[in-house]
Amino acid sequence: MSNEYGGECYCENCERAFREWLRKKYQTLEELNRVWDTAFWGHTFYDWEEIVSPSLLSEHFDMERTTFQWISLDYKRFMSDSMLKNYRSEYEEIKKISPDIPVTTNLMGFYKGLDYQKWAAYLDFASWDNYPAFGAPASAAAMAHDLNRGLKQGAPFALMEQTPSVTNWHPYSTLKRPGVMRLLSFQAIAHGADSVLFFQMRRSIGASEKYHGAVIDHVGHENTRVFREVQALGKELEELGERLLGSRTKAQAAIIVDWDNWWALEYSAGPNRDMRYLEEVQRCYNVFYEQNIPVDIISVTDSLEGYSLVAAPLLYMVKEGYEKKLEAFVAGGGTLITGFFSGIVDEHDLVCPGGYPGRLREVLGIWVEETDSLPPEIQNSFTWEGKYYECGLLCDILHTRGAQALAAYEKEFYAGSPALTVNRYGKGLAYYAATRGNEEFYRDFLGKAARDAGIMPVWEKLPGVEVCVRKNAEHTFLFFLNHGEETVKTAARECAQSLLDGACYQKGEQFEIGPKGVVILQIS
Amino acid sequence: MSNEYGGECYCENCERAFREWLRKKYQTLEELNRVWDTAFWGHTFYDWEEIVSPSLLSEHFDMERTTFQWISLDYKRFMSDSMLKNYRSEYEEIKKISPDIPVTTNLMGFYKGLDYQKWAAYLDFASWDNYPAFGAPASAAAMAHDLNRGLKQGAPFALMEQTPSVTNWHPYSTLKRPGVMRLLSFQAIAHGADSVLFFQMRRSIGASEKYHGAVIDHVGHENTRVFREVQALGKELEELGERLLGSRTKAQAAIIVDWDNWWALEYSAGPNRDMRYLEEVQRCYNVFYEQNIPVDIISVTDSLEGYSLVAAPLLYMVKEGYEKKLEAFVAGGGTLITGFFSGIVDEHDLVCPGGYPGRLREVLGIWVEETDSLPPEIQNSFTWEGKYYECGLLCDILHTRGAQALAAYEKEFYAGSPALTVNRYGKGLAYYAATRGNEEFYRDFLGKAARDAGIMPVWEKLPGVEVCVRKNAEHTFLFFLNHGEETVKTAARECAQSLLDGACYQKGEQFEIGPKGVVILQIS
Amino acid sequence: MSNEYGGECYCENCERAFREWLRKKYQTLEELNRVWDTAFWGHTFYDWEEIVSPSLLSEHFDMERTTFQWISLDYKRFMSDSMLKNYRSEYEEIKKISPDIPVTTNLMGFYKGLDYQKWAAYLDFASWDNYPAFGAPASAAAMAHDLNRGLKQGAPFALMEQTPSVTNWHPYSTLKRPGVMRLLSFQAIAHGADSVLFFQMRRSIGASEKYHGAVIDHVGHENTRVFREVQALGKELEELGERLLGSRTKAQAAIIVDWDNWWALEYSAGPNRDMRYLEEVQRCYNVFYEQNIPVDIISVTDSLEGYSLVAAPLLYMVKEGYEKKLEAFVAGGGTLITGFFSGIVDEHDLVCPGGYPGRLREVLGIWVEETDSLPPEIQNSFTWEGKYYECGLLCDILHTRGAQALAAYEKEFYAGSPALTVNRYGKGLAYYAATRGNEEFYRDFLGKAARDAGIMPVWEKLPGVEVCVRKNAEHTFLFFLNHGEETVKTAARECAQSLLDGACYQKGEQFEIGPKGVVILQIS
Repeated sequence: MSNEYGGECYCENCERAFREWLRKKYQTLEELNRVWDTAFWGHTFYDWEEIVSPSLLSEHFDMERTTFQWISLDYKRFMSDSMLKNYRSEYEEIKKISPDIPVTTNLMGFYKGLDYQKWAAYLDFASWDNYPAFGAPASAAAMAHDLNRGLKQGAPFALMEQTPSVTNWHPYSTLKRPGVMRLLSFQAIAHGADSVLFFQMRRSIGASEKYHGAVIDHVGHENTRVFREVQALGKELEELGERLLGSRTKAQAAIIVDWDNWWALEYSAGPNRDMRYLEEVQRCYNVFYEQNIPVDIISVTDSLEGYSLVAAPLLYMVKEGYEKKLEAFVAGGGTLITGFFSGIVDEHDLVCPGGYPGRLREVLGIWVEETDSLPPEIQNSFTWEGKYYECGLLCDILHTRGAQALAAYEKEFYAGSPALTVNRYGKGLAYYAATRGNEEFYRDFLGKAARDAGIMPVWEKLPGVEVCVRKNAEHTFLFFLNHGEETVKTAARECAQSLLDGACYQKGEQFEIGPKGVVILQIS
Repeated sequence: MSNEYGGECYCENCERAFREWLRKKYQTLEELNRVWDTAFWGHTFYDWEEIVSPSLLSEHFDMERTTFQWISLDYKRFMSDSMLKNYRSEYEEIKKISPDIPVTTNLMGFYKGLDYQKWAAYLDFASWDNYPAFGAPASAAAMAHDLNRGLKQGAPFALMEQTPSVTNWHPYSTLKRPGVMRLLSFQAIAHGADSVLFFQMRRSIGASEKYHGAVIDHVGHENTRVFREVQALGKELEELGERLLGSRTKAQAAIIVDWDNWWALEYSAGPNRDMRYLEEVQRCYNVFYEQNIPVDIISVTDSLEGYSLVAAPLLYMVKEGYEKKLEAFVAGGGTLITGFFSGIVDEHDLVCPGGYPGRLREVLGIWVEETDSLPPEIQNSFTWEGKYYECGLLCDILHTRGAQALAAYEKEFYAGSPALTVNRYGKGLAYYAATRGNEEFYRDFLGKAARDAGIMPVWEKLPGVEVCVRKNAEHTFLFFLNHGEETVKTAARECAQSLLDGACYQKGEQFEIGPKGVVILQIS
Repeated sequence: MSNEYGGECYCENCERAFREWLRKKYQTLEELNRVWDTAFWGHTFYDWEEIVSPSLLSEHFDMERTTFQWISLDYKRFMSDSMLKNYRSEYEEIKKISPDIPVTTNLMGFYKGLDYQKWAAYLDFASWDNYPAFGAPASAAAMAHDLNRGLKQGAPFALMEQTPSVTNWHPYSTLKRPGVMRLLSFQAIAHGADSVLFFQMRRSIGASEKYHGAVIDHVGHENTRVFREVQALGKELEELGERLLGSRTKAQAAIIVDWDNWWALEYSAGPNRDMRYLEEVQRCYNVFYEQNIPVDIISVTDSLEGYSLVAAPLLYMVKEGYEKKLEAFVAGGGTLITGFFSGIVDEHDLVCPGGYPGRLREVLGIWVEETDSLPPEIQNSFTWEGKYYECGLLCDILHTRGAQALAAYEKEFYAGSPALTVNRYGKGLAYYAATRGNEEFYRDFLGKAARDAGIMPVWEKLPGVEVCVRKNAEHTFLFFLNHGEETVKTAARECAQSLLDGACYQKGEQFEIGPKGVVILQIS
């Protein structure tokens, strides 16, 4: 456990601990050999001591590519578990001294090395560090906020760290422009944070982060732009008081994210080197984000009750029984959206035989016979609802088994074969995107699916403006976050109070959100 | 020997074995120091234990770049020999049990790590695995087939492995389009294979290659396109029966390939980092391939008898006595074609003094005084037989010593100096290309040299169609392999039977080869 | 010390020696912890044995990037010191045998791994190896020559190694064109070399540099272009005799270079990954070079007396007391030019608190409040003396504290804030460039600053021709080095003797410098 970021280590201590962890998990070498399918390529283990940590010295041929996926997958789990064990022992020591003070640790968004959904049970509340790079899309931070909100099933979280100005370890320590730190602070709140903190109060004169932004700079006094902005934010938060605390966001749409799936998928040797789990999740999230539709990021252990639509992009691994949960969700009237390279393996990364998409075959009503993999320079296309879309990455060649084809490929020997299907299953619908359409397709298709599922956006689309909602028993709070450079106008839908400037708007009255500006409306 | 692909290992066991191997080869440290020229840079070894395996921990500065070429060259030989030793001990064990069953192992084409020409003696027959990437030129597989045919001096080989559909470890597991698997199977046969096999019968549900193509997919039944194509091929081969078995290809042209040369050349520090042995060999091979001229890939231990033309691209290393073989070949009427950075060193990678091209000086009738090395963005040019060609990589500045200049550089301070020479030596001709002309030059120059040497193509050029020949005592078999997307027509030259569809063509009668199609004509 | 180029090694021996070196330097762990600021991130050392060599196994995340800058900085010092110690023990052994023969070692220009300015005291004279790549600008070699001249405070040095033709370890061993070896030899002399030597006399037949240029090639005789050029140069030098020996170049301008600063700067985590010390030094040097203004490359231990202008690009680290030296220099009438990311830290890489630019605040009369870091695709701009310039990399946002603003940013929220300042301090001027202007700005600005400081070029600008000067008690020697491809004409300013061809020119008489040609004029 030498790496503080939870990365791979292959020292003897870790190797020994890994073997212990495996022994506890599999009990016998027979079971381990079965699950890892070691008969293939003659990898059979005859002694626990023969197991070595995965690395470039064994079967890895690149930092994250290996010819021994199953051991690497378990090593990821082992590492995440070991770090968690370490956290838990610190947690317990602290609780002995201050049992009433909540304990947490600062997570790092979508950090691949640690399965935060497994950690969540051991945090008194979730918290994370948000360090967006200069020019990063606001939707990336939004999705990470929603992950943290989802970790504790919607409970408020804390923005534990952000920089008031620069992040020294970015390649370019570009300054947060005036207003941006405030805007990003309120974005966190809009997504469910009840607290906004900074790293760091005072710039260290030495060590690795001495050029990281701080409330108090090396100059040592408070007469700086950065200090003044922090001070102003503090004043605003003080004036808001406890009004927003504890309010929640109720989403009708959810996206399933699963760390085991992430690991297994990206270790997969085939069918396409360019598959990146988070890219597909973000691509899906962005559609909801752009349309001001709240969305929860949920794990495979979370309940699906109360959602109208659930998206499961690249759900390669379907753990035992999870298909039942999805089937029940759809049968009860829900809309499920998934697609290529989903349902393929079980929790051990062993293929579910009988035809793809394995455990999802039933609910989707299809059989995928073959999958064509396209290099980035090659595209196929299809037409859906009269509109032409390019597609690529993977092209499943499938047969409907109850489902209905909504679009068909237009190129290659499988032209005419379905590119998009829908299966009516019980009272609900299960969509399957057999290929990766372009962004416009995701926008059109997911948008329509959401509307058909009866999901209403929080607000109409405003150029550059993100609109979020939190509610409590008394009030609804609408957050308007202008990430753009232009002033945007919109009209109140009902009588509302603007919390940051105290203004009151009548129904139909126009108000403005300035560049990098924030407006919070309290309704009824 | 931890790496199954024969790659470098620097563990203690290998290091110890390497020292043993060296001791056996050189007997004394004095001899080792002499051959490795360790006096330079003070590398002298005073104890066998001082020798360490070459790696990034010693003198390598990149995976395949080193400042200690001679030890790395011997390490390549040691590794190849060690793997061979391992193969041989397995061979012997098997023969004890089944002495009458032929034993082989599946080679991997031009695999740099193993000197297959040295292995060949210990294979009962040659066999290899052909996994061309999507879009790879058909000439690359053709050349690898010819290597395997050459390993046992023309004896039929086996295509041991090919995928019926996808190769999971390619970056993009693109499907073999309908007909392509059949076409590539017949390409193997056309180049001398007597057997065509697959990896794998049934897709494994786990482990590294679970997404590799198989005859029977994870779905578990035979109702798939892939199964049907394999089945159809099996039927065709069954109907062909034993007709083609044992027939051979008699080539008048040969290309010399030598693993020691490959290793030494690419370890060389200077004169040009972009020199790639196989690229130059392929560049040469492609000319014959495009013109339907059969060519043998031979080793430096093979006889040159019976060839009209021998090409030796980048024959940097000329082992003891090999120059005599080449001289005798030319003196007897043969045509030798070689060029820049050839003849420079002996089998120990020690320069043959007295002027470049060292041991080839006599037969080529030139002295290369200097060699200019050009970065890729700089080109020189020359005019040959009235046509202008660009050239680059290396530009030898040479003096004729009996040879005749056929073309001269047009740029730089050595403008006017010969870029191409020919030496009449005995009854034959020895050409020297002092620089790397563009592809058009290779086509024009090698084509003319072949014609002048009386070599006839098997068939005229047909667009996208490769034409090969095999013969036995009774028949000639002509293979027409259409790698293109268009139907191509040609006319029978004499009465012929089309083996795959049973048609009979009279002399002059036209027949078609469809896209990805195969026609085999049996003559007389 | 396994790496002959002084690179990093992390073997146990080095680790042990490193700990010894640290113990000697810091005496106590308390002091080491203080200086390394280990309190940050909980890095505190409680035992000397806990200290490990910096590498990818500890806190490095790239060859030269680390999250533990301070240990890596000391390791650089330790490595340089250790190599020096090794050199010194060899020096002493040699002196025992031949006390009267000068001893030196061949340096390698701006070699980052070894602090040559610290080594200089132990060399009887400076010497170095000059291997410019094909197409490298002549100013790069010029700056390295001036470094070597500066190592012994202007004393003549030796060009210990150069190739007569090719450098085998360059990616492309391009030939030195006719005349180039002679030109580069005289360039060394023009910059203060009293000796010009070659690597190597005779090409080795084996080992790593067997394709490196040599006076005598593998052919073994002297009938080669290269031999004839070396012979001709030898004859010219013989005819020059001792005339030039010991003559010196008196520069009015100096550029400060400091190895500790180089190391610390490039280890810095922030504010811009693209900061490269030598690039900034070279950028500054080039202005003087192009205008034929001699410049000394000096260390922070060298005296500033006698200089009119001192440039200190990227002087990030200002060692204890050095600010006093700079203040005295300016107060006495000198011109100091520095800029962004200067004056920030002390010799331990600890920030000098109280506001940037730390120890240089006083002499510069400014306070830098913030620094914006720009990725390469983003530029800002300013106008100086009526001319528009683009700028980038870093943009300090500063307040004048006595200094005068000469130009202001034109973009971003800090538009209007000073981009260039000058402070009148005592009798002199201290300039601060708050951002990196484009090359044209450096040319205009440094050129004007030099003229204002009364510095006269040796000669007017001649296209492609470098003009240098050396003097002794009797004579002034002017060197005209034509790096271009065109003949250039200029007129003698006074009666002069042309040493290489014996011609005599009257005042105003025109003479020519041919392509790659050299003219040396001796005056009075």
